Amino acid sequence: MLYLDGNSLGPRAHRVDAAVTDLLARQWGRDLIGSWNSNGWWQLPGLVGDRIGRLIGAAPGQVICGDSTSVQLFQAMTAAARLRPDRHVLLTEAATFPTDRYLADSVARLLGLQVLAVPPAGFADVLAGDRGADVALVCCSLVDYRTGELADAADLTARAAAAGAVTVWDLSHAAGALPVELDAVGADFAVGCGYKYLNGGPGAPAFLYVAARHLDRLDLPLTGWHGHADPFALEAAYRPAASVEQARIGTPPVLSMAALAAALTVFDDVDLDAVRAKSLALTDRIIAAADALGSYGVEVVTPRGHGRRGSHVALRMPHAYEVCQALIARGVIADFRAPDLVRLGVTPLYLRHADVEDAMALLAGVLADGAYRDPEFARRGVVT
Amino acid sequence: MLYLDGNSLGPRAHRVDAAVTDLLARQWGRDLIGSWNSNGWWQLPGLVGDRIGRLIGAAPGQVICGDSTSVQLFQAMTAAARLRPDRHVLLTEAATFPTDRYLADSVARLLGLQVLAVPPAGFADVLAGDRGADVALVCCSLVDYRTGELADAADLTARAAAAGAVTVWDLSHAAGALPVELDAVGADFAVGCGYKYLNGGPGAPAFLYVAARHLDRLDLPLTGWHGHADPFALEAAYRPAASVEQARIGTPPVLSMAALAAALTVFDDVDLDAVRAKSLALTDRIIAAADALGSYGVEVVTPRGHGRRGSHVALRMPHAYEVCQALIARGVIADFRAPDLVRLGVTPLYLRHADVEDAMALLAGVLADGAYRDPEFARRGVVT
Repeated sequence: MLYLDGNSLGPRAHRVDAAVTDLLARQWGRDLIGSWNSNGWWQLPGLVGDRIGRLIGAAPGQVICGDSTSVQLFQAMTAAARLRPDRHVLLTEAATFPTDRYLADSVARLLGLQVLAVPPAGFADVLAGDRGADVALVCCSLVDYRTGELADAADLTARAAAAGAVTVWDLSHAAGALPVELDAVGADFAVGCGYKYLNGGPGAPAFLYVAARHLDRLDLPLTGWHGHADPFALEAAYRPAASVEQARIGTPPVLSMAALAAALTVFDDVDLDAVRAKSLALTDRIIAAADALGSYGVEVVTPRGHGRRGSHVALRMPHAYEVCQALIARGVIADFRAPDLVRLGVTPLYLRHADVEDAMALLAGVLADGAYRDPEFARRGVVT
Repeated sequence: MLYLDGNSLGPRAHRVDAAVTDLLARQWGRDLIGSWNSNGWWQLPGLVGDRIGRLIGAAPGQVICGDSTSVQLFQAMTAAARLRPDRHVLLTEAATFPTDRYLADSVARLLGLQVLAVPPAGFADVLAGDRGADVALVCCSLVDYRTGELADAADLTARAAAAGAVTVWDLSHAAGALPVELDAVGADFAVGCGYKYLNGGPGAPAFLYVAARHLDRLDLPLTGWHGHADPFALEAAYRPAASVEQARIGTPPVLSMAALAAALTVFDDVDLDAVRAKSLALTDRIIAAADALGSYGVEVVTPRGHGRRGSHVALRMPHAYEVCQALIARGVIADFRAPDLVRLGVTPLYLRHADVEDAMALLAGVLADGAYRDPEFARRGVVT
């Protein structure tokens, strides 16, 4: 199998097995409830958060692990808006990942905000324009889930700050794939996903970053008891923990989080600059091969400039769904994004140059021999 | 070990190991992203939901599994309140589990409601009184997490309905321990926990029940893409699924959910009436033994009437924390709830009469020989 879908679900590191087996047999099976203390379950969200923090340029104490990206988006957007209670606009991308937009709409409705959705290229104008002083928060993906375009985090964060707005970054398609420098660029909030380039396993918990300067006046909506300053005092009124622990909600999925914790140890001796260099070399190779397929209507959607490219390549083409199915039948796992994109994810930790070369040769073959026209590959119920 | 804490964390069924191993090695390890289709990951929240539904008197299609109880409470309370947009009161228990109260306060703040917190015994008066017509929703635990008192679900649901209010039941200390009849009593919403009597493992996903009659006008705040009518169309506007699938949020923690799914198969050939009968026999035995310890200041807090008792017994006593620690040192795992309760959980599926007898004898011994006075057992950082 040539797996070019690590940007949807990263593969399993072998060390995950041992961690999960220990959790089942010894920690849960033998030590039971005592494991919250003796096996450090209580500390997991913060410890895993800090592990992720090292990959996204966050000093310790600013990242908590837990829940889904959708839930973390709700937390981050609501808290961000509450830092600017006198403002009324939630600025977001016109073509963001659906869950980001759905949650933006929900938060806006609950808080009485207006959602303004424009292409990221238009953010600067909005922030500098008449409505700039009314923008409470700017929500943006660092890497666009479809096109693979990489935003300029430093520039946008600076523009938002200059306009007095707060930033919420979605790192789902960036964390673990390329260096991210949240502290250095002055980001306010960020969320991301544990099961893509972090390889935490299906539905691995997500994460939330809150810049240290906001922790003492953070006002989160999901006030679960794990975020309380003294959870076991069982007080009647919510009193948030002083640290990023206030962003915990309820009891975290320990089994899933232990798998993610083990997967993250793979990064212990990894230099993200080297990861980035290999990622760019591999996506360069994909782009070059795709350019040779122009006669089949294949178009490279992903930016060609290294500074504007994440770690996947999106190819627009006719019959994209069927081509994707035909590729899968030949052992190349890519994914389809409606209406017309084939997305090739590059996870440099385990993909070789030869794998990418082979995958592109197989794509050329599918297009040349018309295999995708087989009715077997017609669109059915789709989950990719 | 005599484990009287299955009401905090249920033990591991051996069949969980095989399910998790298969998930790691074959489903994630080998089939990777294709598992969303080929191994049924996409269907898990609904399938596990229906499995839980059988234990709480819910016909299929009304229960979804996922996220934490805290998150599900936020969903349920918000959606319940939105069914009564003209009303202003959120009625809840004065001494509910903290997370229930914290989320009630958060929902009330977001929606402009007022929280009215009274002892459940006072609910009837509020609903029948001057403010009854202004109560949007009533939130109540079926079994009180401290006292073990069992509410009369049929009576309270009927009174709420008569007043035009919507009910949100917290089944955390009930589901799997005793028969619950949500459909029969006409409940509106319910939430509960996967890691207590359902034995799903640490932080197992929670569940949300929505009565079928509300599904076509449900208005949930956490509008993640998994709840969309057509998630893979990637539409810009949220459009909820027609079924209970609309209560999905983001990508669920598949590893944790697979463990819960396997744990639930233990209930396949279990008669909950038999479970209930044994539970009552065991808690009767605890109460009788505790009554003999009155000279040590031990007081039975849990109601004595079978119709008003859940599946744990709370004993108030001096030095409750230290006694609990001394019990643990002798192999009896109970838990402490501030300020002065020792809680003994009874999970009839694996606790024997002899276990309960032995545990109570050890409690008598700890009180008689004053072992709890050992400074080793003085209160430290507490996680129980």
